[in-house]
Amino acid sequence: MAYIRTFGEIPGHPEGTPYADREELRLAGLHAHKQNGISGTPAEGADAIVLNGGYPDDLDDGDVIIYTGQGGQDSRKRQIADQKLTDGNAGLVRSQAEELPVRVVRGYEEKSVHAPTEGYRYDGLYRVVRHWFKKRSDGFRVLQFRLEKISTSEILRDFDQATDAGEPESQPIPQLDPAKRIERAIKQLNRRASVVRNIKKWHENVCQICRTTVELPSGPASEVAHIQGLGEPHNGPDCEENALCLCPNDHLRFDYGALYLTDDLEIMDTKSQQIIGKLKTHPKHSIGLQYVRQHRSYWTR
Amino acid sequence: MAYIRTFGEIPGHPEGTPYADREELRLAGLHAHKQNGISGTPAEGADAIVLNGGYPDDLDDGDVIIYTGQGGQDSRKRQIADQKLTDGNAGLVRSQAEELPVRVVRGYEEKSVHAPTEGYRYDGLYRVVRHWFKKRSDGFRVLQFRLEKISTSEILRDFDQATDAGEPESQPIPQLDPAKRIERAIKQLNRRASVVRNIKKWHENVCQICRTTVELPSGPASEVAHIQGLGEPHNGPDCEENALCLCPNDHLRFDYGALYLTDDLEIMDTKSQQIIGKLKTHPKHSIGLQYVRQHRSYWTR
Repeated sequence: MAYIRTFGEIPGHPEGTPYADREELRLAGLHAHKQNGISGTPAEGADAIVLNGGYPDDLDDGDVIIYTGQGGQDSRKRQIADQKLTDGNAGLVRSQAEELPVRVVRGYEEKSVHAPTEGYRYDGLYRVVRHWFKKRSDGFRVLQFRLEKISTSEILRDFDQATDAGEPESQPIPQLDPAKRIERAIKQLNRRASVVRNIKKWHENVCQICRTTVELPSGPASEVAHIQGLGEPHNGPDCEENALCLCPNDHLRFDYGALYLTDDLEIMDTKSQQIIGKLKTHPKHSIGLQYVRQHRSYWTR
Repeated sequence: MAYIRTFGEIPGHPEGTPYADREELRLAGLHAHKQNGISGTPAEGADAIVLNGGYPDDLDDGDVIIYTGQGGQDSRKRQIADQKLTDGNAGLVRSQAEELPVRVVRGYEEKSVHAPTEGYRYDGLYRVVRHWFKKRSDGFRVLQFRLEKISTSEILRDFDQATDAGEPESQPIPQLDPAKRIERAIKQLNRRASVVRNIKKWHENVCQICRTTVELPSGPASEVAHIQGLGEPHNGPDCEENALCLCPNDHLRFDYGALYLTDDLEIMDTKSQQIIGKLKTHPKHSIGLQYVRQHRSYWTR
């Protein structure tokens, strides 16, 4: 039976549904393959992944998953080559770029408290928020993806009429102090707003890579990019030293590794390995070389 | 007392808190002004708005608000001039661009079932998702903003550690059939994926405005923009005839009205009123002039 690639939830297969084996998953329309971890193509995007313990570099915190791409292993699952940005891996990047939801299936061989004890379980929709290369201790490079769970209310709100009300949450209620959490959120949000404000003010919304300013009727515009990624597993800080003022095009190029920086703040084109210019600087904006090196390590051998 | 602009929730002032008058709101740090609807500046963004019946063009569906900007009225609240993309209006555009949360306060003079019967009430955080000019029947142009409510679980998830679980929803449970809603969501999502795929394939990820392709290690990239906006109040269709293949920079310019199209598909620069080029076309991609005219009407007199 041909597999029809569908994004999002499959009717009749809600979150939590168990499956005996990979063939059942395929017949249900949840995942295209019986072996590969990733169900997807570079042109269409990836609609599903299976976590089943194939890679020691995976991390599974439930709502946040660090997922290792496919390829470079021999038949005994030993890494013998670098992974590449092709096939299913490029499919997950396309899902990131187009914000397509990815179904996550966990299998019994995954070494995690979130794995089922037997067979497979569909565990809901996630979005891909970032990808990078990781150099393993054996010297091989693997691709990694950060996935974050999408809540049911979000999924439905995106498609609802304006007059529809919200949807109940099916998640368990955590034992945390909401007031403390809200206060922390406010502090972080306002810290972030001040970093964005400073970076844009210093550079007057001029892109530090291509010197473009996107002029809008409301005024000049730019984006603030972080050099070393925020959040697990990079945990870069949210400060001016770890931020750049970029146009949206160069923000995309920088985050997806088409460009990186040398220690002299020269701009390197990853594909041609040519220096294509020098980063625009500002006396008040000191850039942390540790962050530049961390970002570069994602995209170079 | 000086007003300290804070984005997001104010500790001690949860959603639903009532206030007797505008001065109480200001002292609580919720809104900077005693008269203006918008609390914000072009450089910092807008942190709050008050809905209090000042504009007949407002629409309030609870979770979705169509909010009219400020300016152009005389002391008796009659429109006597066009509104401009300055001051608080430009502040709301900055909040849109930087995805800053906006506090929504409803007042007793608002003509809506969601308004309080007396005084003012803080009604939670919203994001600005779109803005445009509307030509009123009296010939004056006003700015409008579409705001969508941010759920509590989303706010907290953005700032939480990876291991934190979700947060309970405080919204009432609506009487709707979840299965039907999920099926509709899936159909729409997959329809959308096919429009994106066709547009990118036909144009090979080349921007129809500037002919740039953003080359990434995972392959060429582009974005699919809708000409007439989706959702209330524009309700443009999600089809190829209403879509363009653009680079992220021109997507931003097009959505924020720095560029629009003539009936001959020439590209007009809004500020200089000069034609700066012609839209790239493809034989399979017919573009609906009704959508082009609708988009143009947002940004021209």
